[in-house]
Parts: sequence; structure tokens; C-alpha cells
Amino acid sequence: MLTRDIVETAVRRALAEDVPWGDLTVSLTIPEDAWLTAALTAREAGVFAGGPLVVEAFRRLDPAIEVSELVPEGHRFAVGERLALVSGPARGVLTAERVALNFAQRLSGIATLTARYVAETAGTRARIADTRKTTPGLRALEKHAVGAGGGSNHRFSLSDAVMIKDNHLAALGASDGPSITAALRSLRDRAGHTTAIIVEVDRIEQLEPVLAAGPTGVLLDNFTVPELEEGVRIVAGRATCEASGGVSLDTVGAIARTGVDVISVGRLTHGAAALDLGLDAL
Amino acid sequence: MLTRDIVETAVRRALAEDVPWGDLTVSLTIPEDAWLTAALTAREAGVFAGGPLVVEAFRRLDPAIEVSELVPEGHRFAVGERLALVSGPARGVLTAERVALNFAQRLSGIATLTARYVAETAGTRARIADTRKTTPGLRALEKHAVGAGGGSNHRFSLSDAVMIKDNHLAALGASDGPSITAALRSLRDRAGHTTAIIVEVDRIEQLEPVLAAGPTGVLLDNFTVPELEEGVRIVAGRATCEASGGVSLDTVGAIARTGVDVISVGRLTHGAAALDLGLDAL
Amino acid sequence: MLTRDIVETAVRRALAEDVPWGDLTVSLTIPEDAWLTAALTAREAGVFAGGPLVVEAFRRLDPAIEVSELVPEGHRFAVGERLALVSGPARGVLTAERVALNFAQRLSGIATLTARYVAETAGTRARIADTRKTTPGLRALEKHAVGAGGGSNHRFSLSDAVMIKDNHLAALGASDGPSITAALRSLRDRAGHTTAIIVEVDRIEQLEPVLAAGPTGVLLDNFTVPELEEGVRIVAGRATCEASGGVSLDTVGAIARTGVDVISVGRLTHGAAALDLGLDAL
Amino acid sequence: MLTRDIVETAVRRALAEDVPWGDLTVSLTIPEDAWLTAALTAREAGVFAGGPLVVEAFRRLDPAIEVSELVPEGHRFAVGERLALVSGPARGVLTAERVALNFAQRLSGIATLTARYVAETAGTRARIADTRKTTPGLRALEKHAVGAGGGSNHRFSLSDAVMIKDNHLAALGASDGPSITAALRSLRDRAGHTTAIIVEVDRIEQLEPVLAAGPTGVLLDNFTVPELEEGVRIVAGRATCEASGGVSLDTVGAIARTGVDVISVGRLTHGAAALDLGLDAL
Amino acid sequence: MLTRDIVETAVRRALAEDVPWGDLTVSLTIPEDAWLTAALTAREAGVFAGGPLVVEAFRRLDPAIEVSELVPEGHRFAVGERLALVSGPARGVLTAERVALNFAQRLSGIATLTARYVAETAGTRARIADTRKTTPGLRALEKHAVGAGGGSNHRFSLSDAVMIKDNHLAALGASDGPSITAALRSLRDRAGHTTAIIVEVDRIEQLEPVLAAGPTGVLLDNFTVPELEEGVRIVAGRATCEASGGVSLDTVGAIARTGVDVISVGRLTHGAAALDLGLDAL
Amino acid sequence: MLTRDIVETAVRRALAEDVPWGDLTVSLTIPEDAWLTAALTAREAGVFAGGPLVVEAFRRLDPAIEVSELVPEGHRFAVGERLALVSGPARGVLTAERVALNFAQRLSGIATLTARYVAETAGTRARIADTRKTTPGLRALEKHAVGAGGGSNHRFSLSDAVMIKDNHLAALGASDGPSITAALRSLRDRAGHTTAIIVEVDRIEQLEPVLAAGPTGVLLDNFTVPELEEGVRIVAGRATCEASGGVSLDTVGAIARTGVDVISVGRLTHGAAALDLGLDAL
Repeated sequence: MLTRDIVETAVRRALAEDVPWGDLTVSLTIPEDAWLTAALTAREAGVFAGGPLVVEAFRRLDPAIEVSELVPEGHRFAVGERLALVSGPARGVLTAERVALNFAQRLSGIATLTARYVAETAGTRARIADTRKTTPGLRALEKHAVGAGGGSNHRFSLSDAVMIKDNHLAALGASDGPSITAALRSLRDRAGHTTAIIVEVDRIEQLEPVLAAGPTGVLLDNFTVPELEEGVRIVAGRATCEASGGVSLDTVGAIARTGVDVISVGRLTHGAAALDLGLDAL
Repeated sequence: MLTRDIVETAVRRALAEDVPWGDLTVSLTIPEDAWLTAALTAREAGVFAGGPLVVEAFRRLDPAIEVSELVPEGHRFAVGERLALVSGPARGVLTAERVALNFAQRLSGIATLTARYVAETAGTRARIADTRKTTPGLRALEKHAVGAGGGSNHRFSLSDAVMIKDNHLAALGASDGPSITAALRSLRDRAGHTTAIIVEVDRIEQLEPVLAAGPTGVLLDNFTVPELEEGVRIVAGRATCEASGGVSLDTVGAIARTGVDVISVGRLTHGAAALDLGLDAL
Repeated sequence: MLTRDIVETAVRRALAEDVPWGDLTVSLTIPEDAWLTAALTAREAGVFAGGPLVVEAFRRLDPAIEVSELVPEGHRFAVGERLALVSGPARGVLTAERVALNFAQRLSGIATLTARYVAETAGTRARIADTRKTTPGLRALEKHAVGAGGGSNHRFSLSDAVMIKDNHLAALGASDGPSITAALRSLRDRAGHTTAIIVEVDRIEQLEPVLAAGPTGVLLDNFTVPELEEGVRIVAGRATCEASGGVSLDTVGAIARTGVDVISVGRLTHGAAALDLGLDAL
Repeated sequence: MLTRDIVETAVRRALAEDVPWGDLTVSLTIPEDAWLTAALTAREAGVFAGGPLVVEAFRRLDPAIEVSELVPEGHRFAVGERLALVSGPARGVLTAERVALNFAQRLSGIATLTARYVAETAGTRARIADTRKTTPGLRALEKHAVGAGGGSNHRFSLSDAVMIKDNHLAALGASDGPSITAALRSLRDRAGHTTAIIVEVDRIEQLEPVLAAGPTGVLLDNFTVPELEEGVRIVAGRATCEASGGVSLDTVGAIARTGVDVISVGRLTHGAAALDLGLDAL
Repeated sequence: MLTRDIVETAVRRALAEDVPWGDLTVSLTIPEDAWLTAALTAREAGVFAGGPLVVEAFRRLDPAIEVSELVPEGHRFAVGERLALVSGPARGVLTAERVALNFAQRLSGIATLTARYVAETAGTRARIADTRKTTPGLRALEKHAVGAGGGSNHRFSLSDAVMIKDNHLAALGASDGPSITAALRSLRDRAGHTTAIIVEVDRIEQLEPVLAAGPTGVLLDNFTVPELEEGVRIVAGRATCEASGGVSLDTVGAIARTGVDVISVGRLTHGAAALDLGLDAL
Repeated sequence: MLTRDIVETAVRRALAEDVPWGDLTVSLTIPEDAWLTAALTAREAGVFAGGPLVVEAFRRLDPAIEVSELVPEGHRFAVGERLALVSGPARGVLTAERVALNFAQRLSGIATLTARYVAETAGTRARIADTRKTTPGLRALEKHAVGAGGGSNHRFSLSDAVMIKDNHLAALGASDGPSITAALRSLRDRAGHTTAIIVEVDRIEQLEPVLAAGPTGVLLDNFTVPELEEGVRIVAGRATCEASGGVSLDTVGAIARTGVDVISVGRLTHGAAALDLGLDAL
């Protein structure tokens, strides 16, 4: 789901930032006709993401550069594994190297962290989902990386799903159970018929009136594991059941075993460090 | 050094990404004339960066929103401290909240990590510098955040300083000491007279021939602390002396005490997690 | 749900197209200090949409122009009714006039046509929805106009809901009832949990296996009125029931009375003519 | 006169709008290696326009898609006629389909309507011309479609010809015949020597003083047929003679037979409905 | 005819080029609260152009800067004359200074050179016109400067007038007089009715067949003064008579006295040097 | 150092300006299948620059056009010399001709003027450098042309080197020698370690305190030749020694012979006229 436009735009912007008017160093040192073959190599183990950006970075800098043997998105690799071969005019390869690595390192970092969360939930029905806590301007890339790591994408933006929180309900004048149900039903009628409606619930007793309005999903925010278990029991398949709030690698397994459908984790994108990848001349 | 253009462009891009065609939730729940005052609040201690982006995010979404009591860039804050007041039409405040937070959290995360590195080098002459390992498209913002944390900026791009590594010297045909000196002197004559020339050195014995060419600085890459001490002694002020390579919070103090002028740390930008900030309705 | 960015971008583009390097006529005829007050006036009855674009067209051309007494989006007006007052430097008012009118006429044309469809379905549960058959580049504006006319918005793009047609099911290897159910269930598990899934159904007998997979909605394509009635009876509230296919003002009432939830009408956007509005000097 | 830049920009914008971050449906249903051949087919008779946009829409989405057997711009077709063959990866063909159709349907709608107006004037000297009443942002495309339908293009924008109306003459202080002639002569001297000057005339008696100033053309606005005949007689070839104002298919023939040179029709662009075209899998 | 969009875009681009990520010097030396008043001052005499760009450069950099006492476009000034006052935060004034000066110096250089050509033709009917030999990307600005210097604008681009040269006539199969007339008449019928048609003539004997087709103007290319005189006599007001080809300040007067209507001079834009202006702190 | 992005952006902008919606003339006269081969030919002697822009102008307009036998950047040519062959569809060649020539003529004008300055300094150590007095929006192209002419590039923008003038020193409170030294040392510590610091000196006696702070270079502004000689003697290699201020072809030789390292000349870019090049059909 990386469109051509997203990849081209991201790479053009990154190159304009890193090479605004040429690479002083290579133009002073590397002959125009020098050729270089280099390997994109893993300096630590992980899950790969960002291949299309690596290809575009080198090809946009110089269409004479070939990127081959590129591993697919989501590929798991060991330390030292070769992830792609880059071959072409040495000036172009060296100039585009940092931009290509910055993309691959950041996106592979996210894919790798996502895969660790997913691994912790093996054997449960829970999917690991991202949030809107992404790097400004890079959301499509980061959500793609979450997918490469085996995660699932939450809504993309404020324009494609409704998420109702306490303050929204208050603004609708909903305080007790019946008024919550009524407010949500009215909202349901005014929302587009393809728009998912997720309602955040802070206390167990809100669940029934919320469910009575037939939302797409309920988000159980900052629930303890026992509370989640009870929540799942109450929801009983009537809506998607999502857990969120301070989820970590230590807690995600227990949360998944409560039977929730989705666990959303902000850390996938805002807490991932870059993975160490390098470009080694051959 | 955040220009108006950088701030406006980054915010416009982020809002277009997060609110491409309106905020479904607030338009279905919040009255057009509702007013909201909220506080940007620290959920953990740190160093602040990103204020101009917070202001622009809210003001761009709705010019009727006022951001006041904003702490300055580089401000150190405690858990629970109020960093700004946001007041205006509730729809706009809620819609822009996530974009404002995403900027402030990421940039404050970088400023805070930088400040920790800087603190470790207190009492030494060493400055902590960033690298080009930044998030693609956000370099100006991230380098600004490094500055807010007390760090120093390395070259901005491949277009504004020369960094010579082994492969560049090899391409220039430089192998032994005299040929290294000659190659660098020739390069010096061809580079612009305002262009800094930094030469990366892997072994102590390269230092003298490099220094003989009068570079702006030498970068001692992956040197041990004793090697750095010897390097500093040899350089003896003839060039800026920079240490780099896998620097961590554990090692940066010892490195600084060797007397180097600059320690460059990729982690400042590619390893910083977002700092936890929130927007609390008052 | 017209964001500031959408309005500004659309107007800037339109002005650049209509006034690329100035208005030759006004600069040769109208004194710089001439002042003009004019009324946006309806030359036929209808429903208004496009106010924010009218305001932006005049203000962008010359910030000294004031637009006042603007009727709200969705306002129903009679022939001759005044919809806004425009007052400012005569050069600017005359130069921006055509761009302002082109926006208001097209969007009011859509709003007016939508309102006629909505009126035909009065007393039924059916909402009138738009489609993706919009003018390339103007989708957000045209969907906004549909809303101003009392219509509802279908998915905005290929990125925010899934619509499954025959060829998709075939590609999934689904031919008979059980395989359709299985394919849709599997798809449901792979789609994001906030993503609506609408399944297009061409024949009544497909309905049960589709409904068994729990889709968000079913789209009954080109059904006759009796077939729609039977379809509604079968669906029985288990999914949103949408009718589509060659809906006209003559047929929409009968379709609505079958009890469907949604009627999607491509003509709202691709078949609407501009409404006749003018700018009369006062 | 569709430049490469106009075609590329229009298609990029339309794809970004319709496929901002991928086509959820095809990525969940269609195998990456599936191949599809489909025919662009007419569901009603008409005149074709928009071929370059159809080609660009598919090629931009996926350069592996081939568009062949494309009929030329201005081609007249019957119901059921094949207008182009599209062949390539099924995902890309299906994803770009709507954008390609939206362009071809709107532009062919304009070309077809124009051709009907042109047909009504067969055997006369009158050319059918468009106006500035075009869809904001699509003027170049729509004027191209008018040309494909056999029409002629009026001025492109406010920057490339002068059109003088009553209020302009009033602003120039011209009230009676001699002052009108003087004002127009002065204006002629101040306008660029390649700039056409068209003067709108509301009453027969204004014609002589206007013609005395040697304008490029006169526009007889809202004249009856007998008035047009008299106007043509008076003008006697001294200027281009243009009729405008509420021209319809019913009236255009009689207007053309008065001997006017040009009949400008706003409806060509603001009143054309999309023509029904489809993409049928083969 | 400098639209707001042209001015804003040109200034934004220039500032992004000159201050991509801040002004290192002022941020290291000038206090944030320092205030500066400076005068835009002429270091040589000339004709002013570029005021709106000067204003935009300072205001865009910092809206707190005020530009006052700006002389109007086309103002003639003496050495040492004050052209504007700039007052505001010293950082902003100093940072924007170069961009403001670069615009004003180049455009005033063009206006001044144009005024010298115009002065040489005083007392004749000839107007001095620019050409398409402008700096790529700055045409609107440079044509505006020609106007400020008292010159006239030729066609803006290839899209707004037709200019027929020998090779075009050859391509139309026109070789002798009658075929030239026929080719041009046919072309006239196919061109838009608001499109000027200028025909370049290399030899006197081509004039009559060209004039017989009723072109808007004839361009007498590289004619001697006696040839121009004969050309003017033959044309006798039947078309605009334009001289071009290697016109200099030495020859323009004699050319003008032949009675031609227009003299087009490429040098106005491609041969003008920047005028010396400075910003002096008060 | 012309990046692909710079070349593509500059050409796209220039074509959009010169051919916004097609070339009226060629579309009315030249058959679609006509072919043209033409030679880019020098009408005066000079030094070539702008080749990549010439290629892009033709290729962007029509990818079927081939540009061959292009001389390299910096090539010195005689009158009448052929600089490139252009071959392709005649419409495209003729339409792109003016844009290609405008680039080549302006950039070759700069390269040629630079080469004349460089020639005057033959046998000295002085390099000829440009300034920031470039055409707004074309700096990268013009600095490239200076390089093609044998010149050297000064700082690219306000963001990549520090230049300290009198008013900056005053703002730092530096008045006498010791305070100047102290202020510059402090500034040196706050500036990035890859940032060059150039200090402008107006009087000989400022040199020692400035040099005591270890700047990268000193700029001797408006010094007479004897003063420059003394300045060079005092500096004695401790910093780069740059002369500037009203340098002309008459004076540059004597200035170079004083022993300065750099002579910066604003006229290279703001005073260069276009070189006369043409495109001749073969």
C-alpha cells in the first residue's frame, strides 16, 4: 500500500534535504566513471521494511544504478545477512547511501519492533495495531512498516473512522446509560454508512449502553487484565474489542490472552529506534 | 533556526496527512461554538522542543486558537509541568491535538536525549553533535531539537562540508603518508574557500600526514579512549578533533574527558523515543 | 469538512488558471481606487454550497475585499435572493468574480440536485449517498456539496473502505455459497478493524452466504423494486442495505420505499449542471 | 494543446485523491501476479476526448500497463464501440479504472455536447466557442474537449484578451458615442499589440461608436435574432461578430444563420453531463 | 499585473534558496530583540521596479517588519535617493536584505534600460516591447519591469498569440504570394477569434500577400531603416507594424522615426545588468 | 553539482511559463509527423554552460527528441561552432527552443564572463569567486555556470557559512582590538565546527585582533591595491585572504597580483549579459 506517489515524494524530499546542490565530497574525490557494487547488510537481526524507498533513492539519484537481490518487505534476517545489492556509478551510490539507509533503518526498526509484539501474542486472536502517533509526514511509510512486521493498521487519519471518547459523549449530553445509547445511535445515523465507529470505554459499566447502540468496536482504555477479561465476556462478539493504553512487550502477552481482538500500541511507531543496517562496498 | 517556511511546510504536510478531509468525530459530536482551554502537560520530565510547531499546528487549523504561556525551546521541565495553554474553538483544538503532540513529543524526545549526553560531558571542552542520521524530511526540525537540548549541529547536508573517508582517499590514489598529504592539499585547493574539510582517520599513524594538509578537522572513528587521548595529544589544536562511532550514554563521559572537541552521536536523532506529553482539558 | 487546506488550494489553483498574470481588462479600465459593492444573487432557486470558496476567492485576490451576509451552506433560496454581499476595491472584485461564481455555481448545482433526490425519499429511512464519480481533483468539494444538499457521503477513496464485487470474489476463488462465506470471512480477518466491508450482490441467492460472513453492508446492484423489497426482507438489519444502479429522480422514491438504508447516485456529482448565480453591482 | 505537464499534474492529483494510500480492496483480493485485459467501451454514443489522461492514469499507476487501440481525440463513436484496450497487472488496472473513467466521461461529455451545437450550425460561418465558465482547475482539459468536439476556444484567461463591458466603459467615463470611441481608442493604445480587444454591446446604437475604435471583435449580448441580423449587417466584417447569452440547442441554429462569426456557449462546459463509458474485462 | 501568487511564490522560492535553514550569522551575533531601521537607497540613478517583492521579502521573513515610504513602480530616481524605509527586528531585516535587493536590483535594471530605449523614441508613435528572451521562471516579473520602464509587453507565452515565420509558412506549403495569402487565411479561420496573428516578413515583396490575409500585425525582421520606411508605407495601417532584430540604443531612434508601431528588443531583459541599490542602516 | 531535481524543477517551471497550454503556432502550422534536426550554434565566442538544461528542456517537452554531440560544460567555443545537435518531432523542437536557449544563453553568458576574469588572474594564486548576488530562484544554476567558467563558489546561502561585518561586531559589543578578538572567539565556540567564519575587515588595523581569534578567512573590503598587499603580508597564511568590492575586468589583475587567495565578484552573476546562441535547422 505504498503508492508510487508516496514513495517518489518521500525520496525526492529526502534527497533535496540531504543533497540540495550536490555532494561536495564525491565531486572532489570520486571519478565520474568509477563504478561501485555494494551490499546492503544487516548489522543486527530484524525484519525488513523500506525496500521500495531504497530502490527509489538510488534510482532517483542516478537511473544508471541497479538495485538487485532485494529481500521482500517483511523478510526476517540475521546479523550479517545481505539484504540487497546496489551497483552503479560510484558517485551516485555514495551520494544516495545515507538517504537509502535512513529510510530502511527507520522502517525496519518499526517492522522489527512490531514483529516482537506480534510474537508475544502468538496463539491468540489478538492483532497488534498501530496508532496515529507517527512521525509527522511519514505516516503512510510507518503504517506500511507495521504491516511488514505482521501488525495491522488502525484508522489512517481523522477522516476515515470515528473514535468517540468521554469528552465527545459529554459534548453530546450523554451522561447515563440510556443517554449514551441514544447519543451513539443518533451519531450512527448521521455518520457515513461506510464509517467505522469505535467507542472508548473507561469503565466496565459503560459497556452495555455503548454496545446497545451497535458500534463497530469498543476500545477498552487502560483496563487491567482481569477487567479486559470481563470486558471481552460482556462484549461477546457484538463489536470488535480493542485494548489500549501503555502496552509494553512485558504486558502484551497477558493482554492478548484475555481474548481481545485488537491491541493498539503507540510505541510501534513513536518508540522504535532505527535498526542498524550498512552499505558495504564489495 | 527554524525558518517560517520550514515550520509552515512541516505542519501543513502533517495536517494534510492526519486531517485530509475533516475530522469526522468532532464534526459529529462537538458543537461549532464550543470553546476549549487545554494545557500541554508533561507526563515525564525532559527538555522541551517544538514550540513553534505546536503553535503553527493549532493556528493553521484554526486562526482563532490562541497558544499562550509557551515555555521556550530548551526549557527543562518536571513531570506534570504545564508547557503551554491552548484556548479556542473546541473543534479545532481537538482536531489539531495529535499533530501538535506528535511534533512536540518527537522533538522533545531528541532534546531530552541530547541534554543527557551533554550532561555527561559537563566540565569538558567536548560538544555533542548530531549526524545526518535523521528522519527523512525532518532534518531541520531534528537538528533544531538537538540545539534545544544543548547539542551542536554537524554539517547539514552533503552540500555544505566535505568529509573524507578511506574510500575517498583511495579514489584519490592516496596510500602512504606523503600521498595522503598531497591528495588532501590538492583537494583543499579545489574546494570552496568557505567549505570545511573533515578527514576521517582510522589509525593513529594517519594523523600526521592528514594534519600536514591543514584540514578543518579530523574525525577519529571508533578509537578507544587511550587512542583518543593520544590523538588529541598529536593534533594539539591544529584541527578540530572529533570522536565518533557507537557512542553511548555509558561511554560519552570518558570520551569527553580525553580532550576531544566534538563527539558526534547518531543516536541523538535515530535512537530517541518520543517523550510523553499530553493535552489536558481545563 | 472543507479543511482550510482544501479551500485554499482549490482557490489558489483556480485563480492561477484564470488570472495567471493579471486581469488585462480591469488594469486598463478600472481606477486603482475605485470601490465596488456587489451582491451574489440567485438567478434560479436552489440550495447553496461553496460559501467558503467564494470568500477565499475574493480575499485571496485582495484581502481588502469583505464578504458579508453570506448564507450558510445548505441554505435554500428563491430566485432573486441575495446570497452574499461583496465589497472592496473594484479591480479585485471584478477579477475574482468568475472564479467565485464557478465554484458556487457548480457546488450549488450539486447541492440542489441532491436536495431534489432527498426530497423524493422523504418519509423513508433511505439516505441519498454520493459515489466516486466526481470531477477529478474536486472530490472533497463535491462531497461537501452533497452534504449541503442533505445527502450522505459514501467512502471517500479506495483507501478507506473495501467494496467487493464479482470479479474480486472470483479472484478469491469463491464460486458457491460456502466458498463466498469463507472468502469474505478470511478477508474480514485481514482487513483493518476500522475498515468497512461492503459486498456487491447481483442476485438474491448470493445474499445469505454474503451475510453469513458479517459484512458492514451489502450493495444490491441494479435490483428491481420487488427484488429490493425481498433483499431488504432477507437482510433484516444484519447489514446496511444499499441500492445502486441507474437511479433517477423518477425511480428514487420507489426505491426508497423498499426500505433500503442507502441509495447511491452517481448523477449527484457527474450529472449536475451549474446553478445560475450572478454578481450584481449595487 | 494538452501539454505533458497539464496531463501529468491532473492525473497525479486525481490519483492522490482516489488512492491516497493504496487500494484496500485489490490488495486484499487480487493476486499480485494476476493479469487483466479490459476494453474501454461506450455505453452511449458520442464524441471522444480525454485519451491522454486515460493513458496517463493507467501508466502512472503502473508503468507495466499498456493502453492500445486508443481512438483519437474527436472520434465519433456508437453505443458499444470499443475505444481502447487496457492490458496489464490486474491490480493496477482495477485501481486506476475510476480515475481514467472520470476523466474520459467528463471530457467526452463536453466534446459530445459541443459536437451537437456544432452540428446545429452546419452550413453557416459561425463557430461555437467556449467561455470561462469551466470547472475550477480543469480549464485546459475542458477547453481541449471543446476543441475535440469541433468547437473553438475563446480567451483562456483574464490575462490573454481584453473584454470590455458596460461597467468598464462607465469607469472610463464613456457615455455617449464619441466618448465611447475615444475611450476605446485610448485603451487600444495602452493594451499590448498582440492583445485582442472584444467589446460587449447591449444595444444596436452602440455598435458604430465601438466599431469606430477598431476593436478586434464585438460581442452582441442577449440580442434577438433580428437584432443579430441587423448587427451583422452593420458590422459588415469590420470586426469579429460574436453572439452570446443563453444560447441553447434550440436557438443556436437560428443564431448561426444570422451570419455571426462566433457563438459562445457557457453550457458547453458548465452544463455538460458525463458520458457513460465503462471498462469491461475481456 | 504582478498577482499576489506570483509575488509570494517568487519570494518564497528566493528565501528558501538563500536561507534554507536559518541565517547562521545573525543568530550568532544579533540579539533577538534588536531593532533596525534602514533605507533602501539608490547608488546610481534609474527607474524603480520590484517594490512588491521588496515588501514581500521582508514581511514574509518576519511579519513584524514594516516597509514604508516605498516609491511607486516606474519612479525615476537620482543617485542617493531613498526608495523605501524598512523597520523591524534587526535579525529579519538583515536576513531578508539580500533577497530584497536581488529582486529590486534586477527589476530596476530592466526598468531603467527600458526607459532609456523609450526615451530614444520620444516623439514617435513607436512603443518599445519586450520579447520571450527572459530569465527562465521570472518572466512575469521581468515583463512587469519592462512596463514600469514605460515599455509594452509582447505576447506572454507560446499560448497567447501566433507568430508565423518562414519555416511555418513552408510547413503550410506556402511559397509564392497567393499560396501565402491562402495559407494565412486558412490559419486565421482555425485560430481562436481572440488570438492575435503576427507574421514575420523577411523581404518587402512578402508584405502584400501577407497583408491580404488580414493579420493582426507584421514583424519586419532585420530590415534596414529605408526598408522599414518602405514597409510602413506599404502596410499603411492595415496591420500593426513591428520592427525587430538587433535593435540597440544607437539604432532605436532611427528605427522609431520610420513610423513603425512597435520595436521589440530582446536586450531589455536578457541584456540588462542589475542596478546598484543598497540598504543603509539609519 | 546540478542535481537532477534542480534541473528538472527549473525546466518544468520554465516550460510551464512559456507553454502554459500549448504552442498555438506549431499546432496550427506544423504537421504532427514532421521531423526536424537542428544545431545549437554559437553566434559569438564564449564558454559553454547549461547543457543539462538544454537536454531536459527538449526531452521534457517530448521524450522522442534526441540531443547529441553536446559539448561539455566549460567548453570554450568559437563563433559559428556547433554545440549540440537536436533531432526529433518538429513541433517539440520548435516549442522547446526558446526555453532551451534562454537557459543556455544566460548560463553561458555567466561562464564566459567568469572565464574572462579568471584569464586576467592567470599566474596568480587568486581564485575568482561568485557572491549571493544571483538571480532569485536560479542560484544553483548560476553558481554552476561560474564553476563552468573556471570560477569558485562562495558560500551557497546564509545557512552554510558565517560572514561577520562591522554591524555584527557592534552588536556583539566589540569595539577595540581585544573585544573584537574576544567576541570572535566566543562566536567560534558557538558556531558549528564545520562552519567557516569569514570576517570582513575595513581597515588594516582590525586585521590583527581578528586574526587572533582564528577565523577561516578575512575579507578585505574595498581595499586599494597597496592596502591589499599589506593585508596579505600581515595575514601571512593564517587565514584565507579575500578581496572584494567593485572588482572589474580592469582591476582584477592587479588585485590578484597582491597575493590574495580569493577575489569575489558580484558582477559574474548580476552583470553578465546573455550570450548569443541560436538553433539552426539543418
